Amino acid sequence: MIGSEDDFIAALRAIATEPGARGLSDDAAELKLSNTTLVVTHDTMVEGVHWLSAQDAADVAWKLVAVNLSDLAAKGATPVAILLGYMLADPDWNARFAVGLREAVDHFVVPLLGGDTVADPARSARAIGLTAIGRPSVVPSPARADARPGQALWVTGELGGALAGFEILSAGGSDPEATRAYRRPTPLLDDGKALAPLVGAMMDVSDGLLLDAQRMAQASGTTITIDSAAVPVVAALADRRDDAMRWGDDYQLLFTLPEGTPCPVPATRIGSVMARGNALLLVDGVPASQDRPLGYRHGD
Amino acid sequence: MIGSEDDFIAALRAIATEPGARGLSDDAAELKLSNTTLVVTHDTMVEGVHWLSAQDAADVAWKLVAVNLSDLAAKGATPVAILLGYMLADPDWNARFAVGLREAVDHFVVPLLGGDTVADPARSARAIGLTAIGRPSVVPSPARADARPGQALWVTGELGGALAGFEILSAGGSDPEATRAYRRPTPLLDDGKALAPLVGAMMDVSDGLLLDAQRMAQASGTTITIDSAAVPVVAALADRRDDAMRWGDDYQLLFTLPEGTPCPVPATRIGSVMARGNALLLVDGVPASQDRPLGYRHGD
Repeated sequence: MIGSEDDFIAALRAIATEPGARGLSDDAAELKLSNTTLVVTHDTMVEGVHWLSAQDAADVAWKLVAVNLSDLAAKGATPVAILLGYMLADPDWNARFAVGLREAVDHFVVPLLGGDTVADPARSARAIGLTAIGRPSVVPSPARADARPGQALWVTGELGGALAGFEILSAGGSDPEATRAYRRPTPLLDDGKALAPLVGAMMDVSDGLLLDAQRMAQASGTTITIDSAAVPVVAALADRRDDAMRWGDDYQLLFTLPEGTPCPVPATRIGSVMARGNALLLVDGVPASQDRPLGYRHGD
Repeated sequence: MIGSEDDFIAALRAIATEPGARGLSDDAAELKLSNTTLVVTHDTMVEGVHWLSAQDAADVAWKLVAVNLSDLAAKGATPVAILLGYMLADPDWNARFAVGLREAVDHFVVPLLGGDTVADPARSARAIGLTAIGRPSVVPSPARADARPGQALWVTGELGGALAGFEILSAGGSDPEATRAYRRPTPLLDDGKALAPLVGAMMDVSDGLLLDAQRMAQASGTTITIDSAAVPVVAALADRRDDAMRWGDDYQLLFTLPEGTPCPVPATRIGSVMARGNALLLVDGVPASQDRPLGYRHGD
């Protein structure tokens, strides 16, 4: 009997025994062929979970592309193709989705190669999936599992921008700039490529800094410690640092570097990797409070 | 304004300008890299459209893998990886899905490399997608667009098995053998590889022989003529030949060969390719009746 999502994923892990699958605990998989290696990822977005029903479908299309390319960014890979699995909506929504998809394809210079469209007979919450394929700049590409004791923990950019934008949209607001981080995230492809040859572990912060850092510790067999005062947070959430660390959707890169290695991209050192202790994750020296969720568990 | 599915696909075609995308009018796309070529496809299945709600989830998992690998079969490609986009269901359904997925992965020897699982907050009709990646045995791999006047039209196996099985299941029956063709279709991977170096056009019959043949004619700029008496139909539908030709889900291979080329796999010659006339598709010498649908348009 398979109960929760975690149980089901455990069942999938037992099937996905290929080394390149990385135990299904990474942002993307490696596909090793006789003469090349690719990085492949598939993320699905669901109405009401990953986007607000009232949102512009052009933003949904952009975000679907961006979150998948963000997984490639975390591997230091260059996107080479995307495939779309689209559930048809009403005509206006379809049209706006196509507009946003074109904008994303043009902006990120990644060809739409194929996919399919299906009817939605139940007029249910729609699910839309995308597969992205990339070529890694370094093989093996960075993994979550390669954080080592003594390395420094870094994060790009600022956290909380997506949360701030989500709250504005949820309250009926529409300020394009203040909501941009939630509506139109940017996968950090160039940063990922610059970091790939240098990092220990690397992943994107899709589900929340604390949850994703805990996953990195779990996969690496280490404990990660974070200095919360060092975590860069957007001005709008300056007094809600804990919220910003537990909310996802920012698509910043979280990575480790050997002590003393200069970071080649704009980023902030926020902690360290230690030998595995009793807790996977320490915040300011104590185990992270589990009174509130560490992040979003709706999808990896 | 984008109205129908056809309009939306036209909008996608305007985005998918890469030659390997083949105008989104093929079963799969070609991904050309500097040192290799892959074939990639993504098919989504929706509850109530592609499977009956009462069906065993193990059969749904098997079919999801099979229909995607069938697209690779039509390219003469060997599967190298699949990625799953899964919408969580109730625990029993998840468990049975995992059983069927393992059976398919073991049977077809294709590694599950990744994907993701998402919640279904609306308890809606579920959609489940799969991406399959393969290595073609011939480059360029066979396409729908390469039927040429003077070639013979062939189809593998028999048609109507899936329809016969669907009708039994819909009526509450459960005979495993009589419903197998619908529940557990087999992608013809070996046949596809044997045919790939010889064929003009090739595709799988996923949406109905007449509709798929018309699509081949459309993509190729030809007219295709079918001799209905020659079309091989399962015994259960011996007196319903027209139904068998308009129903999909059989995953036989439809292909053209130069006149006189011996066919290397078990298959039946059912027609010919001609220069484009007034109609795309002739059945027994007259334009195919459009009084009834030529096939299922729910997905390509």
